[in-house]
Amino acid sequence: MIEFQELINFIRKEVNKSLGKIPIPKTPAYLYDPIRYSIKGSGKRFRPILVHLVGRAHNLDPNIIMNISLSIELLHNFTLIHDDIMDKDTMRHGQKTIHAKWDKSAAILAGDGIFVLSQIILSSIPKNSNEIFSHFNKATLEICEGQALDKEFENNNKIKEEQYLDMIDKKTGALLSISSTLGPIYNGVDHNLIKYYNNFGRSLGKGFQLHDDLLEITSNQKKMGKTLGSDLAEGKQTMMVIKARNSFPNEWNDIIEKSNETELISNCKKFFIEKGILEKTRLLAESYFNDARDNLKNIKNINTDELFKFIDLLEKRTF
Amino acid sequence: MIEFQELINFIRKEVNKSLGKIPIPKTPAYLYDPIRYSIKGSGKRFRPILVHLVGRAHNLDPNIIMNISLSIELLHNFTLIHDDIMDKDTMRHGQKTIHAKWDKSAAILAGDGIFVLSQIILSSIPKNSNEIFSHFNKATLEICEGQALDKEFENNNKIKEEQYLDMIDKKTGALLSISSTLGPIYNGVDHNLIKYYNNFGRSLGKGFQLHDDLLEITSNQKKMGKTLGSDLAEGKQTMMVIKARNSFPNEWNDIIEKSNETELISNCKKFFIEKGILEKTRLLAESYFNDARDNLKNIKNINTDELFKFIDLLEKRTF
Repeated sequence: MIEFQELINFIRKEVNKSLGKIPIPKTPAYLYDPIRYSIKGSGKRFRPILVHLVGRAHNLDPNIIMNISLSIELLHNFTLIHDDIMDKDTMRHGQKTIHAKWDKSAAILAGDGIFVLSQIILSSIPKNSNEIFSHFNKATLEICEGQALDKEFENNNKIKEEQYLDMIDKKTGALLSISSTLGPIYNGVDHNLIKYYNNFGRSLGKGFQLHDDLLEITSNQKKMGKTLGSDLAEGKQTMMVIKARNSFPNEWNDIIEKSNETELISNCKKFFIEKGILEKTRLLAESYFNDARDNLKNIKNINTDELFKFIDLLEKRTF
Repeated sequence: MIEFQELINFIRKEVNKSLGKIPIPKTPAYLYDPIRYSIKGSGKRFRPILVHLVGRAHNLDPNIIMNISLSIELLHNFTLIHDDIMDKDTMRHGQKTIHAKWDKSAAILAGDGIFVLSQIILSSIPKNSNEIFSHFNKATLEICEGQALDKEFENNNKIKEEQYLDMIDKKTGALLSISSTLGPIYNGVDHNLIKYYNNFGRSLGKGFQLHDDLLEITSNQKKMGKTLGSDLAEGKQTMMVIKARNSFPNEWNDIIEKSNETELISNCKKFFIEKGILEKTRLLAESYFNDARDNLKNIKNINTDELFKFIDLLEKRTF
């Protein structure tokens, strides 16, 4: 596992190096300063790393894999920048968000520009480009749908678990799906096999997001880089909030209404642990990680060892 | 000319029909209601019309031309939606802008979604798709640059004419350029000829924008659909403001400082006429329309009659 972690660190470094080499003009500064700032941020790069691991298993040209992975990372950055405006999040990966550091207009434009850059990089892929473009943009539309559902669900205390799972499937699953499928699509892999890559990515995405919900409560703010418990404070849905509200409506209501601002997070955390909600959510995340594993098992013509190790890595991450 | 106007009306109707047929899901309503509202708006459709005229001259497959034209119109809509948020414009084409009718988050997301739809439609083009994608997205990046310059120029009274022309070349010229070039690129036209289509589109775009600046002052609000003089009030640059400021600094300063809100527009208008600024701007627009004509003359292997008539149409429009 140490060796694998070194591989991951190596890929992350290479991705960061390549991100730094994307030619970003100096002017207009109003557009390109925030874009440069965003690209230099310290994201975990899990999505481009996944692209590289799938590409390695297919022995694909490393330059092409790098370009696909950069497109996906830039697409991810674009959605984060716009989501942060909508969600009024002022911190991301330990640094100020663009709309907080500059203003909303700069953040709207920077998001647009980064998304366009992702498409320009993708237009260099020399083969099966229509299919790649189509998948890339359909996934982006799904991510927009996921963000729209997220907005619709805000402060709506009728949201059910299935609705939340549908939302994170679109917001997170769709992006991990194309991180898994674009390499094989480029490689001309049969459509019947692509569905396993797709399902692998989607299940991994849902496991990843549920794990993220857990970390928001159990990890500390410095490691996560976001405002701890910000989702709670903003009336955002998380799996644990939904479980608490639906299984223990009165007790949950008491906690929300009677906790003052400083107690709220620790009271929620205590409640989630005592009522077994944390454990149930952990088990649900585990079931998605296992579903990702089951899908991998159906892909027999490549060496999937590193992809299995990647699942382990995401499942065990603590920040 | 009446016959040509009928052709334009016919193409506009067909474009609107095809826009109406783009499959827009019902849910999430937060994403798709504003998108549907925007697509049904009464835009003039000059850009898709230009795509069709160039495509007709090349005898291209009408379905492919339609798809290219829809992509460009959706790209245009996307930039308008985001620009309207940044510029705080509440009316567009005689109807409320999305951020005014819904909210900023809905408008950010609707713009994103429409832009993604434009790329999905473009990914159906069966030939030369990498080059088409590359041109399409590079033009979009230029449009973002143009909007960034527009923001940088706001309330900056040092902006010169050349800077303004550079800004409108990016904001308007780049889009009319791809409206002219994508059909020929699809058709495999030689790169040496593509530059004439590009220059034609860019000059047409600058002429169009200068003419628009003039209409904002000379036309009436109902016809234009925007708040008359909104650019003036918002501290936006227009060619006439720049000419007034640079040639008559003291007199112009007096008008801006001493006019009350209700007089401002009529005082500016009077000043632009008396000082010959309106006429000079009209002549500059004319020179760009003529430059567009000169570039067309270099394209000899197709019948450019309808494109010449299209220049006349834009030059003579009154709203």
